[in-house]
Amino acid sequence: MSALWLVFCGIGALLLRVGMAIHGAAMVRSKNSSSALLRAIADICITILAFWAVGNAILSSDTRILDPKLLFSARSAFFSICATLIASGIVTGVASERSKFLPLCTTSILIGALIVPIVGRWRGTWLHHLGYIDGGGASILHLTGGLCALVTAILVGPRSGKYNRDGSSNGIPGHSVPLAAIGALLMFIGWVPTVLGMSSFTSEEDILIRSTNILLAAAAGGMASLVLCYFRYGKPDVHLMIVGFLGALVAISASPNTLNIWAVFIGAVAGIIVPLAAIQIDLIWKIDDPASGIAIHAVSAIWGIIAAGAFAAAPFAARMKQLGIQLAGLAAIAALTILLSGALLFLLKATVGLRAKEADEFDGLDLAEHDIGAYPDFQQTTIKSYHLREA
Amino acid sequence: MSALWLVFCGIGALLLRVGMAIHGAAMVRSKNSSSALLRAIADICITILAFWAVGNAILSSDTRILDPKLLFSARSAFFSICATLIASGIVTGVASERSKFLPLCTTSILIGALIVPIVGRWRGTWLHHLGYIDGGGASILHLTGGLCALVTAILVGPRSGKYNRDGSSNGIPGHSVPLAAIGALLMFIGWVPTVLGMSSFTSEEDILIRSTNILLAAAAGGMASLVLCYFRYGKPDVHLMIVGFLGALVAISASPNTLNIWAVFIGAVAGIIVPLAAIQIDLIWKIDDPASGIAIHAVSAIWGIIAAGAFAAAPFAARMKQLGIQLAGLAAIAALTILLSGALLFLLKATVGLRAKEADEFDGLDLAEHDIGAYPDFQQTTIKSYHLREA
Amino acid sequence: MSALWLVFCGIGALLLRVGMAIHGAAMVRSKNSSSALLRAIADICITILAFWAVGNAILSSDTRILDPKLLFSARSAFFSICATLIASGIVTGVASERSKFLPLCTTSILIGALIVPIVGRWRGTWLHHLGYIDGGGASILHLTGGLCALVTAILVGPRSGKYNRDGSSNGIPGHSVPLAAIGALLMFIGWVPTVLGMSSFTSEEDILIRSTNILLAAAAGGMASLVLCYFRYGKPDVHLMIVGFLGALVAISASPNTLNIWAVFIGAVAGIIVPLAAIQIDLIWKIDDPASGIAIHAVSAIWGIIAAGAFAAAPFAARMKQLGIQLAGLAAIAALTILLSGALLFLLKATVGLRAKEADEFDGLDLAEHDIGAYPDFQQTTIKSYHLREA
Repeated sequence: MSALWLVFCGIGALLLRVGMAIHGAAMVRSKNSSSALLRAIADICITILAFWAVGNAILSSDTRILDPKLLFSARSAFFSICATLIASGIVTGVASERSKFLPLCTTSILIGALIVPIVGRWRGTWLHHLGYIDGGGASILHLTGGLCALVTAILVGPRSGKYNRDGSSNGIPGHSVPLAAIGALLMFIGWVPTVLGMSSFTSEEDILIRSTNILLAAAAGGMASLVLCYFRYGKPDVHLMIVGFLGALVAISASPNTLNIWAVFIGAVAGIIVPLAAIQIDLIWKIDDPASGIAIHAVSAIWGIIAAGAFAAAPFAARMKQLGIQLAGLAAIAALTILLSGALLFLLKATVGLRAKEADEFDGLDLAEHDIGAYPDFQQTTIKSYHLREA
Repeated sequence: MSALWLVFCGIGALLLRVGMAIHGAAMVRSKNSSSALLRAIADICITILAFWAVGNAILSSDTRILDPKLLFSARSAFFSICATLIASGIVTGVASERSKFLPLCTTSILIGALIVPIVGRWRGTWLHHLGYIDGGGASILHLTGGLCALVTAILVGPRSGKYNRDGSSNGIPGHSVPLAAIGALLMFIGWVPTVLGMSSFTSEEDILIRSTNILLAAAAGGMASLVLCYFRYGKPDVHLMIVGFLGALVAISASPNTLNIWAVFIGAVAGIIVPLAAIQIDLIWKIDDPASGIAIHAVSAIWGIIAAGAFAAAPFAARMKQLGIQLAGLAAIAALTILLSGALLFLLKATVGLRAKEADEFDGLDLAEHDIGAYPDFQQTTIKSYHLREA
Repeated sequence: MSALWLVFCGIGALLLRVGMAIHGAAMVRSKNSSSALLRAIADICITILAFWAVGNAILSSDTRILDPKLLFSARSAFFSICATLIASGIVTGVASERSKFLPLCTTSILIGALIVPIVGRWRGTWLHHLGYIDGGGASILHLTGGLCALVTAILVGPRSGKYNRDGSSNGIPGHSVPLAAIGALLMFIGWVPTVLGMSSFTSEEDILIRSTNILLAAAAGGMASLVLCYFRYGKPDVHLMIVGFLGALVAISASPNTLNIWAVFIGAVAGIIVPLAAIQIDLIWKIDDPASGIAIHAVSAIWGIIAAGAFAAAPFAARMKQLGIQLAGLAAIAALTILLSGALLFLLKATVGLRAKEADEFDGLDLAEHDIGAYPDFQQTTIKSYHLREA
């Protein structure tokens, strides 16, 4: 495609990433909201440099890693860098409110330098030859990021006060519902160009069909989760609706070039299973995920990748075969991601530690790690905690 | 135009819609701000599905409504869907803080499935043959949405405590002036691609002239409303300036391909009449409109459509004839919108009711309808109302 | 380039400008945040009209100023107008919290009507013939705006309570760290299209290389300032990191078409010197700049312009000659900007005054100049000041 097209899609991916940062920062308590955004900016910086220095060579295969000739050339990897930021951003959101700043920065290096580039290389080589379907980056961006986030959440552990001794879970509300919704809406806007940038097209019309399907899936996901909320709680819940809405966007990313009606179906199913998965991960598995990133990205990517095989336009036998290919690719990508991120984070946990001190978590990471208050002009209800601590 | 062009313009329209959601949520009290954004997301989802399932067939005319063949095909309506979201979003903003969630969702269906598609069909058929001028969607998006919002505001009634027994009006300040301004600025950014997407061009230069005129009109509208504020109140008022700024953008949407100086004139006049109309609607007509959407969209669209005829580059007699055509088109679109939305909302009001319970309105819709507090970490002045209620 | 390209780049420049407005409004106290955004909108309106009425004729050279024939034609200057808004926006941010509304509006006229158009004309004429390198607008947008902001900050003077009698400086925290970071991230997104719109290209690949270099420089700047924070304060500081991140974006704007490794180097150096300059300007020179706009835009532009000469791909002697050209161009642009803005603001200071009344500054400009509270629903810690005042 033309340079303008790639720049446009890359800008869209950056908007998606910024929307993710806004959503993630809104879903934490105000005492951790500066920290959430500082980590988002740091993640963006580190991932860009890691992808450029190492990842690009892995992905491109026409050069050696850290080849001085490569580094001293003028080379472009604009869209690939922008898209990679989405994968690394998922981890940043999930690990918020309780993890140490520096050790968690390594996940940005891991994703930018190794995981996304390796999966990208696979996507162009053996997965491609196998016939693996992933039209818009559900595996390479969302499955990798989401699974790395899952590993991180397990190894970092839940926030203090999240789970009670009797096994019940406390809701810890994010500090700004409006900001969370604004972030989700900006992600929605950036989603169309991001998926288009990940795709290769057969025609101009194909571009518009994909764009339309992304809208349809998001709408179906949002509505399905709204209906789910009515059935389960009798009231529409804004966060579950956002989870269903974003989950549908992840799911359709696997096969944006499907029929309209399948886009609606894939989105609607995502709008049901992603909120249920988010509840399951929290209440049953007791994995603490402030921004529901694991459900939105990992669970929904799995559904999208399976659906891309199961509902391909082909006879039943061919679809079953395709489903097998999808599951094989899924397993390979999941294994790579879990192994690499598990090894890295386990090592860090055993040495420097991943977890902020309990007192720091109590004060909030803004004050403890960054010496700043996010909203100095406003009286906050969380101020009570400081008194409790002095007692 | 190319697919890239349509995707770019559609993304711009989505940004306009999101800016509208941000502005609308900022103009309500904090106790209704989650509700405002949940409704915005729900509106987006419902309108997308309604346009796809029904509206697209009406607009395109090459197929029957709900034709299974259409639904089971891969079809693109990307830009049309994105633009339609702007019309439906106007109603959502105007009805906030006091209306029930589910009954008001029907306006999204009405606009996405019927009103915008029918006016769009007219635009391509009899209005086109008549020579009706609407270069960038002032009628199809802003007049329809603004008039539907007017009907909604009248039938839903004003917020409790808005108008006193002596007929005076209380200002109910929105909970975040900065967020309101940010929303308006994002709408401004999205306006240029939206208008361009609604237009057909004669040349590349024509695209740039339209873009320039949109900037000029917005600037003139903002400055005119600033001057108005100085004359009327002796101080610049941020909300009235935003109303003038956005009103000018609506007005220029009717004839973006005019001379630069006319764009300045059309914008400046909008910057005077739209704030005055907003004040008139509130103080005299006692129609409660938290985000001034009726003045910004309906009043300014009427001005823009009239101006497009009255200042067309033609002799006086031809301009008067054009003015007649403009008024005829205006009347037809207004009649359709008011009849359809009036019938629907009157029916709903007579059956399920449009209005939230007084106690729910008092508590805020966030708590009453969605069981959530928008800003749980902040001490709010509105908390007083709960004590009053218990007394 | 095509119209689509220019519209896309212009939209990017508007996003940069809006991000700047958000960052600027977040860096002031809540009692001045409505004022900050009102001024941003007024600046946008005034600069658009000033550029259209006067600046465009100066820049284009094919017509006289205020030529009625020009004003009554349909003419496009879309991208130039959008880019000019960036220069004028810098001043608005730096002058916040203490300057009078109307007198400061004149800087928007000055920049839109004279400074940017004259430098733009130079860029196409004698600077071009001299071989002055400024690939993406570091001189025309950031140096001019930053130096005009410097003059403004000196003539307006520091905020009350900023500097103590013993010469020490008080930190006055902005009212929302998350909003500041969100603004900076939106600026980042808009930076790529803005720089591309300012450039002329040799190839499609060249566009992508420039885009990639912008990402690399920003990332290197952010990381360098993070390291600086660790060395200097032992903790990552979110505001200094944003200063380094944005400073690197300004610096790379002078030579975006460099080798990747130089982009990283230019960005990293900016990430060190810009935060240090911001500290120096505050603590030593005692120039009060709430949003660090002088360091981010003026200091970093100087570094970028020097680096563009010193690290050009040429032998040492040629590079020294180029460095001389860069310094000459720099001096000319700086002299023009300082003279024009100094004369205007000195005149205004001697007559109508630039400074808000001390009592108004104390109450906040929102209340004093615009009769509005930015966050009426929230209990604010700043409310104490009113009691103090009554005492």
